[in-house]
Amino acid sequence: MKVQIHRQQLIDKLSELRPGDAAKLLLDAAPELRAGLLLEVSPGRAADLLDELPDDIAASAVAALMPEQAALMVQEMQTDEAVDLLQALRSSDAEAILKHVRHADAVVARKLLTYDEDSAGGLMQAEFIAIRAGMLAREVVQYLRANSEHYADYPASYLYVVDEVGRLDGVVSMRDLVLCEAETPVTSIKADDIVTAAASLPGQDLLRLFTRFHFLAIPVVDEDSKLLGIVTQQDAMEFAEEDADEEMLRLSGIAGGDELRTMGFFHRTSRRLSWLSVNAVLNVLAASIIASYQDTLEAAIILAMFLPIISDMSGCSGNQAVAVSIRELSLDRIHPKSLLWVLRREVFVGAFNGLALGGLIGGIAWLWKGEASLAFVLGTALWANTVLAVMIGGAVPLVLKRFGWDPALASSPILTTLTDSSGFFITLSLAAQTFGATN
Amino acid sequence: MKVQIHRQQLIDKLSELRPGDAAKLLLDAAPELRAGLLLEVSPGRAADLLDELPDDIAASAVAALMPEQAALMVQEMQTDEAVDLLQALRSSDAEAILKHVRHADAVVARKLLTYDEDSAGGLMQAEFIAIRAGMLAREVVQYLRANSEHYADYPASYLYVVDEVGRLDGVVSMRDLVLCEAETPVTSIKADDIVTAAASLPGQDLLRLFTRFHFLAIPVVDEDSKLLGIVTQQDAMEFAEEDADEEMLRLSGIAGGDELRTMGFFHRTSRRLSWLSVNAVLNVLAASIIASYQDTLEAAIILAMFLPIISDMSGCSGNQAVAVSIRELSLDRIHPKSLLWVLRREVFVGAFNGLALGGLIGGIAWLWKGEASLAFVLGTALWANTVLAVMIGGAVPLVLKRFGWDPALASSPILTTLTDSSGFFITLSLAAQTFGATN
Repeated sequence: MKVQIHRQQLIDKLSELRPGDAAKLLLDAAPELRAGLLLEVSPGRAADLLDELPDDIAASAVAALMPEQAALMVQEMQTDEAVDLLQALRSSDAEAILKHVRHADAVVARKLLTYDEDSAGGLMQAEFIAIRAGMLAREVVQYLRANSEHYADYPASYLYVVDEVGRLDGVVSMRDLVLCEAETPVTSIKADDIVTAAASLPGQDLLRLFTRFHFLAIPVVDEDSKLLGIVTQQDAMEFAEEDADEEMLRLSGIAGGDELRTMGFFHRTSRRLSWLSVNAVLNVLAASIIASYQDTLEAAIILAMFLPIISDMSGCSGNQAVAVSIRELSLDRIHPKSLLWVLRREVFVGAFNGLALGGLIGGIAWLWKGEASLAFVLGTALWANTVLAVMIGGAVPLVLKRFGWDPALASSPILTTLTDSSGFFITLSLAAQTFGATN
Repeated sequence: MKVQIHRQQLIDKLSELRPGDAAKLLLDAAPELRAGLLLEVSPGRAADLLDELPDDIAASAVAALMPEQAALMVQEMQTDEAVDLLQALRSSDAEAILKHVRHADAVVARKLLTYDEDSAGGLMQAEFIAIRAGMLAREVVQYLRANSEHYADYPASYLYVVDEVGRLDGVVSMRDLVLCEAETPVTSIKADDIVTAAASLPGQDLLRLFTRFHFLAIPVVDEDSKLLGIVTQQDAMEFAEEDADEEMLRLSGIAGGDELRTMGFFHRTSRRLSWLSVNAVLNVLAASIIASYQDTLEAAIILAMFLPIISDMSGCSGNQAVAVSIRELSLDRIHPKSLLWVLRREVFVGAFNGLALGGLIGGIAWLWKGEASLAFVLGTALWANTVLAVMIGGAVPLVLKRFGWDPALASSPILTTLTDSSGFFITLSLAAQTFGATN
C-alpha cells in the first residue's frame, strides 16, 4: 500500500530518519524527483543518503544535479563510497564534479579511482586514524578527544601506528587503549604481526583474509608499506554479497555478471545475447547428431518426443554437479586438481539417480506405448547419460578453473553440449540396434 | 605440492600458527588423524581450531573423541560456535558431550540449541559485556581492567547497559568510553535508540538490519527486552555467505540447499533426486505435446533435430530472466507485485534477443537444408517462444515469492515446463500449417 506523503513531510523524514530508512523513502520516490529532494536536505545528509542508495540509482540522481551541487555532497561522503559513486557516473560527469570538490579530497578521489573496482585499493577508504609510535596512551586519548569531531564518522576499532613517512608500523585496538594505564607507551600495546593487503590484491583474496583472521578492518599498503587506506568488515561484507550475486547471475548466463532491469536496453540485451548465441551454436552442433539418425527416427517417430527429455534431464543432473563443484571450489573444499576424487564421488550418485530416472522415463514409455524395447532403450540411455552428465558436470568447473577461466559462466554451455551430444548418440544408436533400422 | 610434515612439526605448527592457518593444515591432514591431533594441543587451542574448521569436518573429528575430551574443548569455544558444532553432531553424541561440560556453559548451550539455526537466536553468542546504568566511565574502565582476562575473547566494540533484571537499557561504544572524561556517568554516553533483534527473527531479516544500520553487533532480546546475546557483523557475514551459497545450489536443483561431497551418499542422492524426479514428470507432460504431432514430424523428420534446440534455447533465455528476478527480489529492488513492470522490461529484451536467435537458427536451417519454409517455421517459433520465455522467467519468481514459495528451487522447473510446452506447440503447429500435413 502506497501512502501519499506530502513533499514537505517527505523532506522532514529524509532529514530525521536513520539514513538507511530515509534512503528507502528516496528509493520509493519517482526517479525524476530524487535529485530535487537531495537538494532539500543538508549536503552531509545528502551524502549519507547517497551512501545508502544503490550505486546506479545514486549516480542517476547525482547526474541530474549541477556539478557544484553534487560536489558539496560528494566531498561529505566516505572516500570509498564517493569513488563507487563516481565510477558509476559517466567519466565526463565525474570529472566535472571533481573540479568543484575540495582540492585535498579530489586528489584522494582521483588516486582511488585509479585502482581496480574489485581490488583492495578499489574497496578501501581513506578514513583511518593514524598515530605515532612515540606517543603515550594518554596522549593518544587527548589527540582523539581534540579531533573527535573530525573523526566522528571514521571507523574506530583500530588506530594505525605509522612512522614519519607514513609506513605502517603496528595496530592498536581501541579496547587495548581503554584497558591500558594512561602512561603506557603506544609501542607496548601495539600489535606488530599485522595482516596487510596490497592495493592490487583481488577482492576475492581480501575476503579470504577476513574469513581467516576475523579482523574488523584490514589496512591496505603500497609496495613501500605506506598505509594507503583501510577496508572495513562492512566493506568486505558488501563486496561479498555483490560477488555472490554476480556469480549467481553468471551461472544463469548473464555475461559480465551484472544486470538490473533499471539498466539500459542494449547493456541488458548484449550481455544476455553474447552468452545465448554461443549456446545456440553449441546446441546446433550437439543436435546435428540427430540428423544422422533420420532412418532410426522414421522407424520409431516416438523417439522424437523423448529426445528433448533425455537432453533436459541430463542437463539438470549435470548442472546439480556443476553447482556443487563451484561452491566447493569457492569454499576451498576442493582443489582444481581433485578431479579423480570428484569423479569418484559423482559416479555412484549418477548411477543411482540414473537408475531412478531411467526407470521412471522407461516405465512411462512402457505404460504408454506398451513396447518393452522402447522402454529398454530410453531407460538405458538415460541411465548411462546421467552417469556421464554428473561426471562431466562435476569435472568441468575444476578444469575451467585450472585453466583460469570462469567456471560460473562457461560450465553450463560446455556441460549441455557434451551431454546433449552423448545423450542423442546413446539413445539413437541404441534404438538403431534395438529396432534394427539401418543408420 | 604436498609437503610431508613430520607429526611433531605439524603439532608445533597447530599450536603456533594463527588459528585460521593452523585449521587449514588440519583440513589437509587425513580425516582419521584429526581427532588425535586435536588432543595434542591445549583444549583452548583445539577450541580455536574447531571454530575455524567447517562444521561438518569439526563434528566428525569431535565425534571420534571421548565425550569428556570433547567437552574440554567445547567449553572453551564461543557459545555460538559451540552450538553450531553440537548441531552438526548426532544428538546423542551432543548430549554425551554436554554431560561433561561445565554446568553453567551446558545450561547456556542447551538454551541456545532450542533456537532455529537460521534465526537471530541461533546465530547469537552469549559472550557480551554487560554494565549497569549507575556506573561512571572510570568505574567501567576499572571493571574491564579487573576482568580483562575473562573478557579477552569477547567482541568488545560495544558494552551493553542492563538493569537489575537484565533488560537492555542502552549501548555504549568503546570509542565513546575512550573519548569521554573519567567522571562521565554511563547514562550520558549511552545510545538509547537501540536496534535489537527478537530471538525468533529470521537470519534474512537480521541481515537486512546489518545492511541498514552498519552496526558491528546487534543485541538479541526476548519478549521482555531481556538481553539474551549478540550477533556480531562477523556472524552475520558468515550467515550471508552460507545463505547465498545455498540459494545458488537450490537454483541449480539441490533441494534443501546444502550439499558437500563429503556428506553421505543417501543424503546427496535423495536431495538431488527429489528435484529431478519432479522435473522428469514435468518434462514428460511438456513433451507429450510432440506425440500429438506425429504426422507433422513424419512429414518433416528434420524437425526432430530442432525440437531439443528450441527447448534448450528457450530454457536458457528464461533462466536468465529468472536469475535477474531472484537477485532483484533479494536486493529489494523489485516487489513481488511489480509484475507488470518486470514484464514490460522483459518483453523488449525477449523480442530483440528472439530475433537474433530465431535469425541464427533459421539461417542455419536454411543454409543446411535450403528450405525457406523450414527456416521460417523455426525462426518464427524460436522468436515467439523467446519472448514468452523471458516473460515467464521474469514473472515466475515474483509469483512464487508472493505465495510464500521458494523461487530459487521451483522457478526453473516451472519455467522449463511452460516454455517446453509452448515451444513444442508453436513449432509443430506452425509446421503443420506451413507444410500442410494434417495434425
